[in-house]
Amino acid sequence: MTTLPAPREPLRRVAVVGGTHGNEMCGVHLARHWLKAPGELQRASFSAMPVLANPAATAACRRYMDRDLNRTFTLTFLRSEATPDDPYEVTRARELNQLLGPKGTDQAFDFILDLHNTTANTGVCIISESPYTVFNLHLCHYLQMQNPDLPCRFLEYETSQNETYSLESVSKNGIALEIGPQPQGVLRADLFSQMRALVMSILDFIELFNQGKAFPAFEMESYRKLGAVDFPRTSDGGLAGTVHPRLQDHDFEPLRPGDPIFRLFSGEDVLFEGDSVVYPVFVNEAAYYEKHVAFLKSEKIHISVPAMPGLSSSPTVAS
Amino acid sequence: MTTLPAPREPLRRVAVVGGTHGNEMCGVHLARHWLKAPGELQRASFSAMPVLANPAATAACRRYMDRDLNRTFTLTFLRSEATPDDPYEVTRARELNQLLGPKGTDQAFDFILDLHNTTANTGVCIISESPYTVFNLHLCHYLQMQNPDLPCRFLEYETSQNETYSLESVSKNGIALEIGPQPQGVLRADLFSQMRALVMSILDFIELFNQGKAFPAFEMESYRKLGAVDFPRTSDGGLAGTVHPRLQDHDFEPLRPGDPIFRLFSGEDVLFEGDSVVYPVFVNEAAYYEKHVAFLKSEKIHISVPAMPGLSSSPTVAS
Repeated sequence: MTTLPAPREPLRRVAVVGGTHGNEMCGVHLARHWLKAPGELQRASFSAMPVLANPAATAACRRYMDRDLNRTFTLTFLRSEATPDDPYEVTRARELNQLLGPKGTDQAFDFILDLHNTTANTGVCIISESPYTVFNLHLCHYLQMQNPDLPCRFLEYETSQNETYSLESVSKNGIALEIGPQPQGVLRADLFSQMRALVMSILDFIELFNQGKAFPAFEMESYRKLGAVDFPRTSDGGLAGTVHPRLQDHDFEPLRPGDPIFRLFSGEDVLFEGDSVVYPVFVNEAAYYEKHVAFLKSEKIHISVPAMPGLSSSPTVAS
Repeated sequence: MTTLPAPREPLRRVAVVGGTHGNEMCGVHLARHWLKAPGELQRASFSAMPVLANPAATAACRRYMDRDLNRTFTLTFLRSEATPDDPYEVTRARELNQLLGPKGTDQAFDFILDLHNTTANTGVCIISESPYTVFNLHLCHYLQMQNPDLPCRFLEYETSQNETYSLESVSKNGIALEIGPQPQGVLRADLFSQMRALVMSILDFIELFNQGKAFPAFEMESYRKLGAVDFPRTSDGGLAGTVHPRLQDHDFEPLRPGDPIFRLFSGEDVLFEGDSVVYPVFVNEAAYYEKHVAFLKSEKIHISVPAMPGLSSSPTVAS
């Protein structure tokens, strides 16, 4: 496990972002609501800034217009010279980098909370890119303690590229908050309320940290991304089957070698050929068909999280 | 209730259509599968023709490219002169009208079965435009008898315009088969298998009819569309709330005056103000946000369906 130390300064510059994918409706409508009525995002030591990340895709109710915005925050894109032919999301990534970054600099925001939905039955999932901070683990633990009946998993998402590319990689620290299942383009009241309450808890946690509270050590389960599994395909690249009923909706549950993972249109089953138990995540996520991902494989690991000491000097209260 | 008599000739020219909406994946993948392997669609007296209705939208995994294809089969569109600026779906509707129609002529197909999915929790629903045929009611009853554990509702869909506009209106008779819930862009194995089995049963029913079988009278429940209810809106047209948790997923269940229908982002509930019980359908369907429809209201009616006598002359067996 690779972790970074917790921040040693209060988090003053915090952004809560919706609509990074324009058809993931909880974040879209929370961001729109808070842009009009930002009072809920205020705490004593900071006021989180609401951001609607991809206005064009949100207006079109599509994930993106030209390319996936949440894969576009690489330094290569951010530092390349602008041209009139740039994809919409490349231009938008540069704008967001100016607003919330610049990435990798002292001027960058302290924390970005990026709100996502999935069609998969993930429940609540905190996604943190590796290397992630002890702060993010304490944040997840805080949510678990606040919501004992809610599965709230921590997923360590190792990027396959060398370079981070997500929106939250622009800030000094951040997470994606993923809640499912919700169809693209649909706003469910239950998930909307759940996400709203979790954002409130996350801001409360940041406030406690800013006020100098110390957080004791604890043990927790975490999930670490191992790789992706594509759908079965025909010779022309089309689907030859889909996720097996016994895997569908079973995100984060153990998948053993020999368990069925796909049912072919011919009626045959495809079995999992791994040599150890894995934990599937994002099972049958609509947006991942084009990425050739039927589900991600993860491993479940037990981690001992060190205590996070209180900030030495109490922060001043924001005016 | 307005019904038309049953056809008096065998149904020889039958089409099974998927991808009328390009992100409703059961029909898309069934049509693609049957285009390669049409054997399942053969019966003794006919061979149903598989059709992928909107190839461009299917390739883009969108409902449509320029306008909703399933609202485009009016005589106004079909008979208007083609121009280079025509929306893609207008051009495609004319092509399908040539293939399966022309609408309103003796040359038109005998029956179109159009396959749809919804994000709403409808279960299985047969949609038949008014005036519908006694044949369609017997077909629905046959499916109910074949699948006693499956809710299989009949929805009489009165078009708000004077003119019919759906794909199946091109043929002499037809239905839409709607199955939900399934997110747009996702293929669930359970719903795929269910739709495939229902199509097989529908073709079996047509075969029995073609072979001269008589069907006795029966009683059944039907649902008749009354109108639509929009989401609560802000002054700028955005959403002010969404479907109430007590209505979400409760398609075809009674909604009484005073029951909650929406939860506003402010936390308040909006109650149903009708003066009698209605039966909501297509509750929180993703594609209907842009149509300003949060759900359809329907009434539940008890109908006595007359017997459908056997065709007088046995059909010849197709070679």
